[in-house]
Amino acid sequence: MDYQLYYWPTIQGRGEFVRQVLEEAGARYRDVARETGKGAGVAALMGFLNGRNIERPPFAPPFLKAGKLVIGQTANILQFLGARHSLAPKNEGGRLWTHELQLTMADLLVEIHDTHHPVAADLYYEDQKKEARRRSTDFLKHRLPKFLGYFEQVLAKSSRGENYLAGMRVTYADLSMFQIVAGLNYAFPRAMAGAARKYRRVVALHGRVQERPRIAAYLASPRRIPFNDEGIFRHYAELDAG
Amino acid sequence: MDYQLYYWPTIQGRGEFVRQVLEEAGARYRDVARETGKGAGVAALMGFLNGRNIERPPFAPPFLKAGKLVIGQTANILQFLGARHSLAPKNEGGRLWTHELQLTMADLLVEIHDTHHPVAADLYYEDQKKEARRRSTDFLKHRLPKFLGYFEQVLAKSSRGENYLAGMRVTYADLSMFQIVAGLNYAFPRAMAGAARKYRRVVALHGRVQERPRIAAYLASPRRIPFNDEGIFRHYAELDAG
Repeated sequence: MDYQLYYWPTIQGRGEFVRQVLEEAGARYRDVARETGKGAGVAALMGFLNGRNIERPPFAPPFLKAGKLVIGQTANILQFLGARHSLAPKNEGGRLWTHELQLTMADLLVEIHDTHHPVAADLYYEDQKKEARRRSTDFLKHRLPKFLGYFEQVLAKSSRGENYLAGMRVTYADLSMFQIVAGLNYAFPRAMAGAARKYRRVVALHGRVQERPRIAAYLASPRRIPFNDEGIFRHYAELDAG
Repeated sequence: MDYQLYYWPTIQGRGEFVRQVLEEAGARYRDVARETGKGAGVAALMGFLNGRNIERPPFAPPFLKAGKLVIGQTANILQFLGARHSLAPKNEGGRLWTHELQLTMADLLVEIHDTHHPVAADLYYEDQKKEARRRSTDFLKHRLPKFLGYFEQVLAKSSRGENYLAGMRVTYADLSMFQIVAGLNYAFPRAMAGAARKYRRVVALHGRVQERPRIAAYLASPRRIPFNDEGIFRHYAELDAG
C-alpha cells in the first residue's frame, strides 16, 4: 500500500509522529506538501481542508490518504498504521492500552505547545511572552514531572520487561515517546538535563528508538526536517529552567 | 456486561461523555466514585491512579473497568463502547471517521477549558483572570467559529443526510457534540445566542440528541450532575461575548 501524507512542509509538528511510523514500517509514502508540481505542495493540502472534492474533510493536518480513505487526527492515523504494520499489539487489551498512551502523549503535546502560545496560536510569541513565561514555569515545575513520572512508572511496572511501553515489542507509542523526548531536549535543554537522571527509563527508551536502523537512517536523511522555532517544540532560552 | 466508571464525583467533566454513551446504550454501570462504602468513593479512584494493584495505570480519570480491562482516555473509552453497543459504524472508514471527529472535539474541549485556565490548571481562576480574558476573547472570535463552522460543514456535506455527523445513525460523536453545545450554552450564553443562527445544523443536532428517550431520561435524573463552576464548562460573565 502506498500512502500520501499531508502536512505543513517546513515543520516537524504533528506530522512527524506519522512520518516516524511510516519510516519504521518501511512503508512507501509521499510527503505531498513538500513536493512541487501539479497536485502537490501546500495547495494540494488546502484542497482537502477547504472540503473541495471530499465528503469527510479533516479539520487540520496531518492527514493520511490510504487508498480511498482519508484519515485525520494524529492518534487516529497511528492507530490505523499500527494495526496494519505490526506496530501495535494484536489483542484488544494491548491495542487499547497503546492508544491510551498515545492519547496521553497528545495531551502532553498540547501543553508543550501552549508553553509558548498560552493565549492564542494565531498571535505571535512576542505578543504573549509574559503569559508564556508564567505558563512555562508551571509546566516545568508541575506538569512535565507529572507526565514523565507517569511514563517512567509505566515502563517500571510492565511485567513484560521495561524495554517498551506496551510490552516486549516496539509500538507506535514508543516512537512518539522518542519524538517527545527529542523535542523536549531541543526546547528545554536545561530542564531536561535534570530530568534525565530522574526518568532514566524514559530516556533509555528514547535512545533505544533512536538506534533502530530505519529510524536512524530516517533521522540522518533529508526527509527529517530539523527542529526550528516554528513548530511545537521551540527553544526560547527564557522559557527554560533557570 | 457490567461497567464501572471512575470519575470525579462532583463535576460533569470528561466523565460526562462516557456517562452519556453508557446511558444511550442502556448499559448497566456503576459510577464508582459517586458511591460510598468499601471499594467506592474517590479513594477507589485514587487507588488506580496511584498504580496500586494495576499494571497499566491510567494517567487521569475518566477510566472504565470492563471485565478485566481498565481503559483510560475518553476518546479511547468511547471508541471501545461505540463498537460494543452499535454507537459507531461497523465499516473501517466509518469507524475511523467517527474517531477522528471525536478527537477533534477533544481538541476543542482543551481549548474550552483553557479559556478560564490559560496559565495553569492547578492555579485558581482568580490568579489568571487577566490571561483568561485575553484567551477567551481570541477563543470566541477565532477558534470557536472555526470548530463550529467545521462541524456545520461536516453535517452539510454528508451525502447520507445531515441528521448525524457520521451518517444516518447516531454515534458516540453525536452524543459528544450534544454535550459540547450544552456546555457552551452554559458557559457562553451571549456568544452562543449569536452562534445559534450561524450553525443551525449543529444546534439542531444538539436538540435531536437531547430528545432521544434514554438521553432525556438521563438528563432528568439525579445521575446527571448539573453544570457548575468547577468543571470544564464554567460561566464567568466577564469571559463571555460583550
